[in-house]
Amino acid sequence: MFVFVLNCGSSSFKYQLLDMRDERRIAAGLVERIGMSDSVLTYEPESRERIKETFAIADHAAAIRCVLDRLVDVNVGVIKSLADISAVGHRVVHGGEDFSGSVLIDDGVIAALEKNVPLAPLHNPPNITGIRAMMSALPGVPNVGVFDTAFHATMPPESYMYAVPYDWYTAHHVRRYGFHGTSHRFVSERAAAILGIAPEKFNCITCHMGNGSSITAIKGGKSYDTSMGMTPLEGIAMGTRSGDVDAGIIKFLGDNTGMSFADIDNALNKQSGLYGVSGVSSDMRDIESAARDGNIRARLAIDVLRHRVLKYVGAYAILLGRVDAVVFTGGIGENAIDFRASVIERLGALGIGLERSANDVRGKEAIVSTPDSRVKAMIVPTNEELVIARDTRDIVGAA
Amino acid sequence: MFVFVLNCGSSSFKYQLLDMRDERRIAAGLVERIGMSDSVLTYEPESRERIKETFAIADHAAAIRCVLDRLVDVNVGVIKSLADISAVGHRVVHGGEDFSGSVLIDDGVIAALEKNVPLAPLHNPPNITGIRAMMSALPGVPNVGVFDTAFHATMPPESYMYAVPYDWYTAHHVRRYGFHGTSHRFVSERAAAILGIAPEKFNCITCHMGNGSSITAIKGGKSYDTSMGMTPLEGIAMGTRSGDVDAGIIKFLGDNTGMSFADIDNALNKQSGLYGVSGVSSDMRDIESAARDGNIRARLAIDVLRHRVLKYVGAYAILLGRVDAVVFTGGIGENAIDFRASVIERLGALGIGLERSANDVRGKEAIVSTPDSRVKAMIVPTNEELVIARDTRDIVGAA
Repeated sequence: MFVFVLNCGSSSFKYQLLDMRDERRIAAGLVERIGMSDSVLTYEPESRERIKETFAIADHAAAIRCVLDRLVDVNVGVIKSLADISAVGHRVVHGGEDFSGSVLIDDGVIAALEKNVPLAPLHNPPNITGIRAMMSALPGVPNVGVFDTAFHATMPPESYMYAVPYDWYTAHHVRRYGFHGTSHRFVSERAAAILGIAPEKFNCITCHMGNGSSITAIKGGKSYDTSMGMTPLEGIAMGTRSGDVDAGIIKFLGDNTGMSFADIDNALNKQSGLYGVSGVSSDMRDIESAARDGNIRARLAIDVLRHRVLKYVGAYAILLGRVDAVVFTGGIGENAIDFRASVIERLGALGIGLERSANDVRGKEAIVSTPDSRVKAMIVPTNEELVIARDTRDIVGAA
Repeated sequence: MFVFVLNCGSSSFKYQLLDMRDERRIAAGLVERIGMSDSVLTYEPESRERIKETFAIADHAAAIRCVLDRLVDVNVGVIKSLADISAVGHRVVHGGEDFSGSVLIDDGVIAALEKNVPLAPLHNPPNITGIRAMMSALPGVPNVGVFDTAFHATMPPESYMYAVPYDWYTAHHVRRYGFHGTSHRFVSERAAAILGIAPEKFNCITCHMGNGSSITAIKGGKSYDTSMGMTPLEGIAMGTRSGDVDAGIIKFLGDNTGMSFADIDNALNKQSGLYGVSGVSSDMRDIESAARDGNIRARLAIDVLRHRVLKYVGAYAILLGRVDAVVFTGGIGENAIDFRASVIERLGALGIGLERSANDVRGKEAIVSTPDSRVKAMIVPTNEELVIARDTRDIVGAA
């Protein structure tokens, strides 16, 4: 059984084709600058060289046809026929309160996704575009939606309710939803397996830190609280997103500067975070390099990020009461050795000691706490596409 | 030496007169509805009955003259002559980055307070009005400003910097300032004294919970981080303020409802918090009563508040590394026995056990953790007026 996985953005998408007999990724790539004259299609078949092509691709449907063509190409293809693709799994950002798990997509599901567009105006529309394009490119092949929000559907009300007028929740669905659920779920399940703890007894704190970042408190294998909120703006500092800010700042800037509220929102999402503080880059590698060269604002950006990660880990440790592991994943979590070490060194009060030699690794599963640590610190590389493919296989198999 | 303490709001003020030989409060009261035809003056001389009078008081200056008249009244007065008042201490909300401690007020200080009005548009103007009124009512008597923000001036940059565009800080002074500093300072010093720990070695978490609330991490006797931010909106849920929210909610509501940004800001400050969630009241006593009667939203409001208090205590415990005590103060912190117990019961991971019988007390100093608790839980009633009077005495004495 082959499953095609699609993660669709507004002008780009990432894709993978997995052979679910052994969960092997047999092709992967992305298409960027869709709708431009210089669109870029990247295609990497298993065990062969990556192919990168630049040409005009008009829209998502055309881009998907180009990718499918390559999958079955006589020279670079990895399957004989598109009929070998049994199902398509879609990453969908916002399921609102409608979806607490992955779902076979039908007209009702698409209608629900459209209803939730106001909750994720930047993300849900391209997700819907991707679903329609796959339905038209592979008629008759089932499509499954796997939601970034679904894993967090188990949060209790005290975690997801903001202390705002109650009718903002009932009338406008204002609440914490959380994101990156697929990643938090994957790495927590994998961490439990590595430690040999039954998932339903496993309490952990998963730190997904990449360009977007969130931290989740997981209690008995289920999401209990998470740092992203109604939108992906809340939580720890990210590449260009502020994370937590005093909401009073928005009115202050509106009253005291020439900025419109749209300007402020745009700045909080696109000119803030590590980029805003450092002024160097949104990429942790560039910032660490600048900090080593003595750039004070780059050092400050790292300090601010560490401070906020520590606050969430501490907060969630108290909420959980007992913690088995703190798990690092995502581009920064898996690869920023020094930063990860500097976080773990501050978690002594939780009963974690840093095993420096074990931590000296990038992108590999590892226990990086000392053997006598009461709570383990771990690296677990995330694999959202694999979760999407597994859910797709399971749902299509059960249907 | 007698010190008059003034805490001035836009249409009301609170005052005390203290005899600093023994730090005794010899008169206290408040004036409300200033500028209305039915202003209310409350005056409570030491050891005698409270007097409450209703009559028209035109402005703050007139209200202060009425209070001073009563202080020297032949029947209800507590001092012989206004010349006995050696100094006046003023609570001032926002010192910006200009004041890291209390200060003798001169024209330069007033100019700095006026410069900081945009940072506290609701609070600094009446504070300035109060200062000018006292200068005119008691010419030649020194005035001292004691700032809500000053205690937090020791926060490191990683605590006070938001992850927003850096020029918001340099050009517009956007940073965490924190408030309730006088209270956090008082109760932390008092807690250190009760425990017999030198202040410079004392690490604690002070939970000031009243109508406005904030939690502070105190390291070696100094503020290290605090939950209120640039404005008093950030942090835990309060009487009518939301505390922490996803800033993305503001744009969402602006885009999807008929609310203006001023409406939203007003709702976050005045219709949110315990009131917004419960729909019952902003007063914890009313909410606890409703919850006991089965009101689900009242119960939710309490659960949300507890959840957020726990998050901050956990966050600050990790930041501090070692904690000597968690200290409760303010109307809720001192008096809400069941709520306080329910918080402390969730702090077992910090090494705190609840001593239920010791906790069964309102408004009194008490250690409420079990004797074997590694970290102490304590109640310390706050006394901001006393801090203001002491600072005023010290500064005037040194001048």
